[in-house]
Amino acid sequence: MTPGPRGREAPSVVALGGGHGLAASLQALRRVTPRLTAVVTVADDGGSSGRLRAEFDILPPGDLRMALAALCGDHSDGQAWADVLQSRFQGDGPLGGHAIGNLLIAGVWQSLGDPVAGLDMVGRLLEVQGRVLPMAAVPLAIEADVFGVDPTRPDETTLVRGQATVAVTRGTIREVRLVPEAPPACRETLEAVRAADVVVVGPGSWYTSVIPHLLVPELAEALVGTQARRILTLNVVPAHETAGFDASTHLEVLADHAPGLRFDAIVCDPAFAAGDRHLERYATALGASLVVQPVRARDGSPRHDVLRLASVYADLMAR
Amino acid sequence: MTPGPRGREAPSVVALGGGHGLAASLQALRRVTPRLTAVVTVADDGGSSGRLRAEFDILPPGDLRMALAALCGDHSDGQAWADVLQSRFQGDGPLGGHAIGNLLIAGVWQSLGDPVAGLDMVGRLLEVQGRVLPMAAVPLAIEADVFGVDPTRPDETTLVRGQATVAVTRGTIREVRLVPEAPPACRETLEAVRAADVVVVGPGSWYTSVIPHLLVPELAEALVGTQARRILTLNVVPAHETAGFDASTHLEVLADHAPGLRFDAIVCDPAFAAGDRHLERYATALGASLVVQPVRARDGSPRHDVLRLASVYADLMAR
Repeated sequence: MTPGPRGREAPSVVALGGGHGLAASLQALRRVTPRLTAVVTVADDGGSSGRLRAEFDILPPGDLRMALAALCGDHSDGQAWADVLQSRFQGDGPLGGHAIGNLLIAGVWQSLGDPVAGLDMVGRLLEVQGRVLPMAAVPLAIEADVFGVDPTRPDETTLVRGQATVAVTRGTIREVRLVPEAPPACRETLEAVRAADVVVVGPGSWYTSVIPHLLVPELAEALVGTQARRILTLNVVPAHETAGFDASTHLEVLADHAPGLRFDAIVCDPAFAAGDRHLERYATALGASLVVQPVRARDGSPRHDVLRLASVYADLMAR
Repeated sequence: MTPGPRGREAPSVVALGGGHGLAASLQALRRVTPRLTAVVTVADDGGSSGRLRAEFDILPPGDLRMALAALCGDHSDGQAWADVLQSRFQGDGPLGGHAIGNLLIAGVWQSLGDPVAGLDMVGRLLEVQGRVLPMAAVPLAIEADVFGVDPTRPDETTLVRGQATVAVTRGTIREVRLVPEAPPACRETLEAVRAADVVVVGPGSWYTSVIPHLLVPELAEALVGTQARRILTLNVVPAHETAGFDASTHLEVLADHAPGLRFDAIVCDPAFAAGDRHLERYATALGASLVVQPVRARDGSPRHDVLRLASVYADLMAR
């Protein structure tokens, strides 16, 4: 294995999330270790992935594809394939809007009949550093109890169904659940979490990309039981689904959904931590030291800077 | 380059055709030489290719995909990809029936904007021996004058449009034409034909896969002008579109569509040559020696046996 700082073996890291948040996390982590496993939510029901689920009842490939592309080396031959797989068919015909990679992953799955083997095959094509796995072995739905969806009835709780719908709902999400409620985890994912040196949760859409991992019973158990160091990375600003939440509220709702889970470190950008009087206390309650470091994009856009985040992860792993 | 028999360099071979006939030819030829270029018709308007043309106005990828798969080594890692690319989405939804490889080729073309560069990229994925090129730079249509489409009006000539429709028409085809009439050839294809040691035309559906090559003016010119040895391989039995034609009639209609073209050898299975009193004379008229050798599948099915055909090609090239 590649030696890490001071000649030690590079740490084995598992990163959990979905969408663009996970992609940012992976782009940072692959600069820290080649021993990297991405664990991806499988509840997406929107866009190209949603259409593929509707047609074939498969795991939604979109976030898996994005994670594969994020693990593709900048200068490898695989990058040309990553560019193709990340592109989408134009127009509004039967194929319009489909990501080429989603179609290829779906096709490989149909041929091989094994989602993990299929992702490994596409991973070899992209010459990815590491591995991409689904969080569960079956496609999932997300449903949420949402407060104040109808502004004229602010006291009412509404059941909102579907990840894409939950992600953009009006009102305030109180709780998310998976459907089915206790899905089987992916075996290889559980093994990776149990064997990891470091587990990184987040960033990402809190209710639809981060918390869902903690609702798969076997995966939550593995996260609680692993000997790995656990890092939680907060978003630099709240996404739509946690609009108005401060950093400590993000910790609160996460703890509500995963009562037994503790962390070793919680990474937060200074601007998001500023003025949050509860943050230090909430981090301590989760067992974690609070790491307030600049990790936001230098141009101020609402995303993580890959190298800043990589630097913070490298520091944490060298401790 | 790989040395051929008696230490000579292996010959550079260009094979022209389409569909299953070309695939058989390529599977035979790649056993004879690694310096192999497939030139593929681009007039298909049926099935998955037809749907992709209708949606994106691209070259029909199906026959190109089949040629790429035929050039994929039996034991290479590329074979796993060839299996995926040759498979089709199940069901009758928006993706149902599409070959995975057709979607991938269409996606690569959209990304790269260059059909030849895209085919080379997919060729590397499949670790193909040789190269696959389109016969023309633009998608084409085929139209045919057909005698006796309506059995109650046997003297009438009907204009039938579209490769898929022509291939299964009732009646007797008298002439096929390309639309547009004089399409630009693919530059790399012309270069390959001009530089070839051997050119192989056929087997394949005579009017829709073989003759179309001779109707692209620049390509016909290159075929007439090349210093390469020219081999014409007849089908083992007539396909639907030449039903009832004997071997010499196949030569006659081909000569009608390509007046200046001569051949050095014409390969014909003994059963198809049997009783055809004109065959020897027609071959001679085309400048060719007639090579009657068993090339049909040993089980009697109406296709070429790959190793028999390879053996005949090897003999011809060793002369």
